[in-house]
Amino acid sequence: MTQATTMTGVLSPVITPFKADLAPDAERLIAHCRWLLSNEVGLAVFGTNSEANSLSVDEKLMLLDKLVEAGVDPKRMMPGTGCCAISDSVTLTKRAVELGCGGALMLPPFYYKGVSDEGLFRGFAEVIERVGDDRLRIYLYHIPPVSQVPITLALIERLLKAYPGIVAGVKDSSGDWDNTKAMLDAFPGWGVFSGNELVLLENLRNGGVGCISATANVNPGPIHRLYANWKSDAAEQMQAEINDVRKFIQGFPVIPSLKHLVAHFSGDAEWDRLRPPLVELEAEQGRQLLDGLAARGFTMPGLPQVQQGAAD
Amino acid sequence: MTQATTMTGVLSPVITPFKADLAPDAERLIAHCRWLLSNEVGLAVFGTNSEANSLSVDEKLMLLDKLVEAGVDPKRMMPGTGCCAISDSVTLTKRAVELGCGGALMLPPFYYKGVSDEGLFRGFAEVIERVGDDRLRIYLYHIPPVSQVPITLALIERLLKAYPGIVAGVKDSSGDWDNTKAMLDAFPGWGVFSGNELVLLENLRNGGVGCISATANVNPGPIHRLYANWKSDAAEQMQAEINDVRKFIQGFPVIPSLKHLVAHFSGDAEWDRLRPPLVELEAEQGRQLLDGLAARGFTMPGLPQVQQGAAD
Repeated sequence: MTQATTMTGVLSPVITPFKADLAPDAERLIAHCRWLLSNEVGLAVFGTNSEANSLSVDEKLMLLDKLVEAGVDPKRMMPGTGCCAISDSVTLTKRAVELGCGGALMLPPFYYKGVSDEGLFRGFAEVIERVGDDRLRIYLYHIPPVSQVPITLALIERLLKAYPGIVAGVKDSSGDWDNTKAMLDAFPGWGVFSGNELVLLENLRNGGVGCISATANVNPGPIHRLYANWKSDAAEQMQAEINDVRKFIQGFPVIPSLKHLVAHFSGDAEWDRLRPPLVELEAEQGRQLLDGLAARGFTMPGLPQVQQGAAD
Repeated sequence: MTQATTMTGVLSPVITPFKADLAPDAERLIAHCRWLLSNEVGLAVFGTNSEANSLSVDEKLMLLDKLVEAGVDPKRMMPGTGCCAISDSVTLTKRAVELGCGGALMLPPFYYKGVSDEGLFRGFAEVIERVGDDRLRIYLYHIPPVSQVPITLALIERLLKAYPGIVAGVKDSSGDWDNTKAMLDAFPGWGVFSGNELVLLENLRNGGVGCISATANVNPGPIHRLYANWKSDAAEQMQAEINDVRKFIQGFPVIPSLKHLVAHFSGDAEWDRLRPPLVELEAEQGRQLLDGLAARGFTMPGLPQVQQGAAD
């Protein structure tokens, strides 16, 4: 047995189902995670598309515990553990390590804007020191369009120098390939995930390790197929096909769309629920989404079906 | 005894002291709150300038409990209770109401950007319904430069219609007087606080109820004096004098500057500590800050002094 090493491949920021009272629904989450794993897609639970920041720390701990209790392989899990408060980040990251998670995807503290690299360095360093466990593998989460707090190359360099091995990689959700390329060039051999599958092939060709993508929640098979066959002659064609699906979905509010697709293809309307401040798709949007994907031959094969007469 | 009504006057988003291990320091917080109250300034604990979003929910509950246990009047308190997760906002707001706080200052959920008024309405409504207490008085916290999630006039109108009395006012930290004026004009008689003292006189002349200002942490007396005498002939001069102090401090990183001033005038260097991602002033900045304020005759009369030989 080796200790946890760099994670690779396709991961999904797993969407989080809610019950009628808006409590997180561990059973449906477990079922969706199993389906993703059956498609060779890993589990970045508690990502942006998981509505993770709409969950309390206790709710996240509960879900993490239940996933592992249910037998979902923690080595395939990279839970989001970065919060505004270092005390919260420490609590979540500690639990992730104790449970044997393959990594932890860490947002910078994101309330204060315009903060210094020195302050962000101290924030990550405090978490790493307080968790104090050699098994920790941190993936820095760069998503300036949402967090508004970027993770610069200079900050990464400083963290890598201070915590080699522990700071295992990055998810670049800048949406800017030039930035991903700059990371790949600056840190060869490091764990660079692109933040979506649109540039998966490009990322792999330049030394990246995979992608962590919202749409892997609904299109895991074809995205993984590209990852597994990126050196084949068919790679460009595979990339074009998954891009076509992704770009169409991106024309709609993404998180409600992913939930609507799972609701539709599983026959389980419970999946259509979001926590405020997010809202479900309007009926007409939902129809356009399904029609457009039907025209592309899109399906979600093997998705767990709701039982007739099953009630929550 | 009447039930809680609209709060008025000058409040301070009370800066939060930290111990050497970065745990929040209830004793020093209590002492600072008492000094502010002795200057007739109310307590918006857990505001932006309190580093509130660098604290966990449990840490905030602990501080709130200890403040009230220590005899600090909860009616003068308007704790910040708005978090990214409604479950957290409910926990904090409930406790604030149970303790008899005069109000709760509520950020919108601030992780997701570009969200709809419908989603924000649902967020506030869920908290109000779940707290389910007629004593609740919510002050909406509009601070787009930091939260990046604005609270529009249309949203306020909808909330006021659904929860009259409960939705008691707003803190406008947009830094845009035209926006404050639009709120005053749209909702006459409502509890509009300006987000700083620079427009305190203007706000009061237009029907506003006061200000909630970072610099009230260090300059409470003069700011309250303007509030108490805003109809006097000396009001314009008072406004000019407090503005001069405010504008000078604004030239430095504000939160570390407020802490440095308390540290300096109390002789208690413990106050110079911040939680990441914020960092303390550099030595040269600290000197410039103190020199510039000395030239303005600035002091903090009556501030609790650290005991000789006292140790933490």
